[in-house]
Amino acid sequence: MSFAARFILYYFIIFVSEARVQEYSPVCRGLLSEELIKEIGSYRHVKDEIFRYVLDGDFKRRTYDELAKFVDIFGGRPSGSKVLEDSIDYMIQLTQQEGIQDIVTEDVEVPHWVRETEKLTMVQPRIKNISILGLGKSVSTPSNGLSAEVIVVRNFDELEKIPDKDVEGKIVLFDPKFTSYSETVVYRSQGAVKAGAKGAVASLVRSIAPFSINSPHTGNQNYEDKVKKIPTAAISLEDADLIRRIYDRKEKVVLNITMSSTYDTKISRNTLIDLKGTNYPEQLVIVSGHIDSWDVGQGAMDDGGGLFISWAAPLILKRLNLRPKRTLRSIFWTAEELGLVGAYAYEEKHRDKNHNINFIMEADGEGTFAPRGLVVGGTSKARCIVAEVLKLFESVNATTLVESNSFGTDIDVFIKKGIPGATLHTSNERYYWFHHTAGDTMNVEDPDELDLCTAFWTSVAYIVADISADIPR
Amino acid sequence: MSFAARFILYYFIIFVSEARVQEYSPVCRGLLSEELIKEIGSYRHVKDEIFRYVLDGDFKRRTYDELAKFVDIFGGRPSGSKVLEDSIDYMIQLTQQEGIQDIVTEDVEVPHWVRETEKLTMVQPRIKNISILGLGKSVSTPSNGLSAEVIVVRNFDELEKIPDKDVEGKIVLFDPKFTSYSETVVYRSQGAVKAGAKGAVASLVRSIAPFSINSPHTGNQNYEDKVKKIPTAAISLEDADLIRRIYDRKEKVVLNITMSSTYDTKISRNTLIDLKGTNYPEQLVIVSGHIDSWDVGQGAMDDGGGLFISWAAPLILKRLNLRPKRTLRSIFWTAEELGLVGAYAYEEKHRDKNHNINFIMEADGEGTFAPRGLVVGGTSKARCIVAEVLKLFESVNATTLVESNSFGTDIDVFIKKGIPGATLHTSNERYYWFHHTAGDTMNVEDPDELDLCTAFWTSVAYIVADISADIPR
Repeated sequence: MSFAARFILYYFIIFVSEARVQEYSPVCRGLLSEELIKEIGSYRHVKDEIFRYVLDGDFKRRTYDELAKFVDIFGGRPSGSKVLEDSIDYMIQLTQQEGIQDIVTEDVEVPHWVRETEKLTMVQPRIKNISILGLGKSVSTPSNGLSAEVIVVRNFDELEKIPDKDVEGKIVLFDPKFTSYSETVVYRSQGAVKAGAKGAVASLVRSIAPFSINSPHTGNQNYEDKVKKIPTAAISLEDADLIRRIYDRKEKVVLNITMSSTYDTKISRNTLIDLKGTNYPEQLVIVSGHIDSWDVGQGAMDDGGGLFISWAAPLILKRLNLRPKRTLRSIFWTAEELGLVGAYAYEEKHRDKNHNINFIMEADGEGTFAPRGLVVGGTSKARCIVAEVLKLFESVNATTLVESNSFGTDIDVFIKKGIPGATLHTSNERYYWFHHTAGDTMNVEDPDELDLCTAFWTSVAYIVADISADIPR
Repeated sequence: MSFAARFILYYFIIFVSEARVQEYSPVCRGLLSEELIKEIGSYRHVKDEIFRYVLDGDFKRRTYDELAKFVDIFGGRPSGSKVLEDSIDYMIQLTQQEGIQDIVTEDVEVPHWVRETEKLTMVQPRIKNISILGLGKSVSTPSNGLSAEVIVVRNFDELEKIPDKDVEGKIVLFDPKFTSYSETVVYRSQGAVKAGAKGAVASLVRSIAPFSINSPHTGNQNYEDKVKKIPTAAISLEDADLIRRIYDRKEKVVLNITMSSTYDTKISRNTLIDLKGTNYPEQLVIVSGHIDSWDVGQGAMDDGGGLFISWAAPLILKRLNLRPKRTLRSIFWTAEELGLVGAYAYEEKHRDKNHNINFIMEADGEGTFAPRGLVVGGTSKARCIVAEVLKLFESVNATTLVESNSFGTDIDVFIKKGIPGATLHTSNERYYWFHHTAGDTMNVEDPDELDLCTAFWTSVAYIVADISADIPR
């Protein structure tokens, strides 16, 4: 590769949230045969047919209405809960009612952490209730709570510099300034371990979000075996900033925190729905979303939207009698939120046949706002094929290809094994305003944007499952 | 006035939120003497001096820092509470520390409504906790709560059309689509009366807001003597829309609601701070904000910002040795939120001297975002003088004059009596996102925008208090 080409490629290797790649073709010149480019172009009429059916035909608004019904019936669907299993049964029944019978579920042992009492009160310098959301798998406090002085730190380095004796018995509040999710989320996922290792009795984190209306954001966190497990929770930007201001005025802040929860494991299920390929039924193109969600909110955005556009793809193709050469498999992952548990189980169970996964897609991490393209992991040639497919979506402004090999979602498990894949790229400006909050509801979703996502997702999946070329590894 | 002039004037009589008036001068031509126009123009250097002092001098960031300290110490300051009285004492002390001694308080009997338990649960078709904020002066439910089926109506007409027997014993949910605050707020302020008159046992309202992260908005409401008082509360946009969707699917929605509160009256105080005029000390130009707030949030935006820029005005003029010809009076109104109670008391107490109020200003209703101008009530000539003053603020883009005679704030009490006045007009796009919620905190405020408001507010007040012409009635 020439220096210039390397430079361009390097430039393109950027985080999803930080830029868009409008022009991918320069680095692809010569990588794809003229024949393949022509073949991909020939799918324009199929794409148009799918868009007509979803945007102006029988499927119009169907994704939104089905998603609304689903999240209204079940609400949040946390890993290990009965409501999650009921929602899986519902999706199976809904799919069968549409005449699709090729449905399999695979058992997965999943974490089952149940939030009970959560109460945080500032008791000094004045009494104030503070909105709180415990983080995933947090241990409980003593039943009558614990009171302690607060230390506020901006980052792990600041904490490390404080002598252990000054941290012992205190509550540590991490108040990182939100930059990007991937950069800031470490204070949520590792805060309890870092604070616990210094002798803190609890840890709090300023919610990982750029905006708030006093809305705390929950999320997963991971203890380490050798470090004492301490209770850990998120508070709102507003309350974190309040405590920071008082702390900076050299006033002592004392909090009383009471948290209780239970934690065990349960059996849940991944759900696999196949539209069998005509020529290479053993070859798979996977579309997916996760069916579990956090307990707060409705899990409409994370990941109800991704779930439903992936549910819709085989159904729409069946209705339009578009049967691709490879099998289109729609997967509803379980227990994503507590550590991609369903995805790890699937990869392990099917490891000897993972060579059959031609391409794996998941819609998660940017919501189902208006589609803008795909975030693609894989080789340059794999990306070039996808970039060529994306050219078909110019009229809906969804041609952007963003490179990444780390998505923070289920498909990371497969990308790490060298399997090419993609997540949905959207006009997601407000995703982290609602992410993991009580505000993740149908109010975030828009029927027309959801239709665009459904049509785009189905079209891409069909084309990749049907073209003559495999997506190379 | 010519037809064309009338037409232009009519066109200008519009709601604050709906348009801006960039060009007010055409209708003023001939109304102001060349001498007065020249005189107003001559205040440019004073205005510049004030802006330098606030934006780049000793007062830089002072408004923000003092406001933050104040709201961090006291939090919400509801009418009738001890914390409100403590906050009034604090403001007096803070002002005295700055060397201003001309401070008077005037007792006012105010409502004292205290929110206690508030809990709302959907019990059918499924169990779901619903965020709730009781509305001002709401009565309690029975102590063990009440359960009832819900009727959802978009507006009062829809409710009227339902036979009383179908409303009796039900909970009415008003879910008006937010258009403007002034248009939609009637469902909050009158919902309980309208529903109670039809025999409902409780009323709920979709929060009066254009945006939400599961954030209910409280606010005042008024019972009528002849109608049975029923418990009344706001719920979030998300939960109102959830209930609406289920209701539209013809499913029965049953809610259990428990609310308790206490209600009596207390003595509070209006606070009056005078910078005595050099020539006409009996003549007043008033700058003001209200010191009370709702109990949720910090009351930083509503109306801490307005309070502090009005606190700053006489202080800055004193520091700069700018003593206007008329007296500048800064008033901190009490109990605005429960019905402009402090303003009514002041107007009544001083009624025989109300002719001495030359101009009355309040910063409330649009927050202290970047200043854009003033919303002015009064005669055409009064507005023309103010428009001429506003021309001085071109460099900070604060020249807009919006006409209104109804502000929804304390100064309505005076405008109705024919006294000219104005409220601060700002770039307030997000005001109603936070209004009356737990999200009304310092996070809404920006130090630089607050400085601009302080400088603008102080300059306008000084010029109006100092020019040769009275503001005509």
